[in-house]
Amino acid sequence: MGWMHGRLMEAEMREQPARLAEGAPRYHAVLEKALGGESFDMVLLVARGSSDNAALYARYLIEVHLGIPVSLAAPSVWTRYGATVRFPKCLCIGVSQSGMAPDVAEVLRRVREAGHETLAITNTPASLLTEVARHTLCLGVEEERSIAATKTYTASLLSLYQLVRVLGGKLPSPLLPDDAWVERTREAAERSLGYLLRSQTLFALARGYGFATAQETALKLMECALLACKSYSIADFQHGPRALAGFGSAAIVYGPYADGLMELGSAVVVAPDAQAGPCDPIWEILFGQWLALHAARARALDPDEAQHLQKVTQTL
Amino acid sequence: MGWMHGRLMEAEMREQPARLAEGAPRYHAVLEKALGGESFDMVLLVARGSSDNAALYARYLIEVHLGIPVSLAAPSVWTRYGATVRFPKCLCIGVSQSGMAPDVAEVLRRVREAGHETLAITNTPASLLTEVARHTLCLGVEEERSIAATKTYTASLLSLYQLVRVLGGKLPSPLLPDDAWVERTREAAERSLGYLLRSQTLFALARGYGFATAQETALKLMECALLACKSYSIADFQHGPRALAGFGSAAIVYGPYADGLMELGSAVVVAPDAQAGPCDPIWEILFGQWLALHAARARALDPDEAQHLQKVTQTL
Repeated sequence: MGWMHGRLMEAEMREQPARLAEGAPRYHAVLEKALGGESFDMVLLVARGSSDNAALYARYLIEVHLGIPVSLAAPSVWTRYGATVRFPKCLCIGVSQSGMAPDVAEVLRRVREAGHETLAITNTPASLLTEVARHTLCLGVEEERSIAATKTYTASLLSLYQLVRVLGGKLPSPLLPDDAWVERTREAAERSLGYLLRSQTLFALARGYGFATAQETALKLMECALLACKSYSIADFQHGPRALAGFGSAAIVYGPYADGLMELGSAVVVAPDAQAGPCDPIWEILFGQWLALHAARARALDPDEAQHLQKVTQTL
Repeated sequence: MGWMHGRLMEAEMREQPARLAEGAPRYHAVLEKALGGESFDMVLLVARGSSDNAALYARYLIEVHLGIPVSLAAPSVWTRYGATVRFPKCLCIGVSQSGMAPDVAEVLRRVREAGHETLAITNTPASLLTEVARHTLCLGVEEERSIAATKTYTASLLSLYQLVRVLGGKLPSPLLPDDAWVERTREAAERSLGYLLRSQTLFALARGYGFATAQETALKLMECALLACKSYSIADFQHGPRALAGFGSAAIVYGPYADGLMELGSAVVVAPDAQAGPCDPIWEILFGQWLALHAARARALDPDEAQHLQKVTQTL
């Protein structure tokens, strides 16, 4: 029966190579038409949940490849404290698969009213976000029916990668995961599952581009499998959380950071290395998605209907 | 014997009212001399660990009360990817109690070389940070001997509050915690301890100004008591982590957010409300510090000598 759980999630995960291959040229064309040749003094990213992890990836890409500063918005600055923030010439990007996040929409609206450029990235063509933003990129990966965001997450990553190229970032055409990678990560996750299920304390660790993957892996494990997993950048991990890494803990590691952890007695699960450079996050989260799905099934949970969660989360 | 544990930490916690009262006018005077009358188009904050939580508080204060955007730096953009980021007229603030964080210093150095204003906030007068920044604010709270940052954390919060006032933020003189508050939070933490120790999943939740307090509470509980505690802004909590809140979980809540949680079956520990407005974080973390100290003692751990941790953490 466990294998009926997460049926939608598995199907949507397996769609990813085809959806991304289809999306890559389309995203580039849509963004080129909307924003090609434009330049900005800074970028403001607004998102929640999985979309916020996609924004975290964009933060590194934009600062490294466009050389302009990025701020990840704290929506309550606007929605709770009613602040007015004066930006230099700014591109404000709201990311929300449902397009229904009211706080994300509110920040977009306010920044647009102040005369700045705005872009909504969403999987829902006619939604709150597309109404308030001047430009919209629709992910177009068809409806995501599982509660767990998978294909909309990787499509968001890809759209942000293409955006950086359109704005002048010197990045090659995106290298995208194929069906063989889906299979390889599935098998690797299956082999690693026992360490996760037996651990008392669970971490997901990475750095730089990969930090988004660690964050999204932790979120997926919580949502789907009710495993409390904490994610850290390797650098922040040294400032405190490392105290918890010992016998009984397991760390899911993206990148070459396993050594010090094993000395501490922690079980270490090393994610398959995609070797896709700045596109790594588009590949490597597949491993995290499989871990979450396998762990959910092992614990007789259905990630398609995660408890206490709804597909559209509205926060103000 | 447990009561000998955390002897230094307790003494340093109890020092806080006196240290903060002494620091408040001095910080204002030093910052006024260094930066009074200056204005900036944005602020870049660079910090790790507890200092990064202080930076998170400053982020809200600056955006709300100065109306200029804030970016919390990801040091690896510089140290790992070697990026050059073009800032508008920028104030770069590095926070590190030890003054020895090489990645924080590297960002300060690079931003200063690009012609921007730089400020180091540290408890260590002659340190790496004071060498690379043009201006220094020394916290001057005497050496912090426990591994757990307590008085340097609240002093960092206070210094950032005074900075916002010096830069033109319409904020009153800081309202500071007194010895009665130290006692009140100690007692409240003692009464709440059982919920923490019996929980399988532990959260710290808040929003806006209080989010820094939730983050720092979680970090203290991990460092001192080896309790895996996850912190979220209330809004992000709705996007996934909420799935874990049920019987067997406990949530430490700063602010009026208890209602929905109790319905889920979670034990809820409500922190005493300081009613000190934007100064709340300077008061309310006392409760988190006491929770961490009490929990450490109950688990026969010594927070003065936290396992796997060193007072000065160097990451590149």
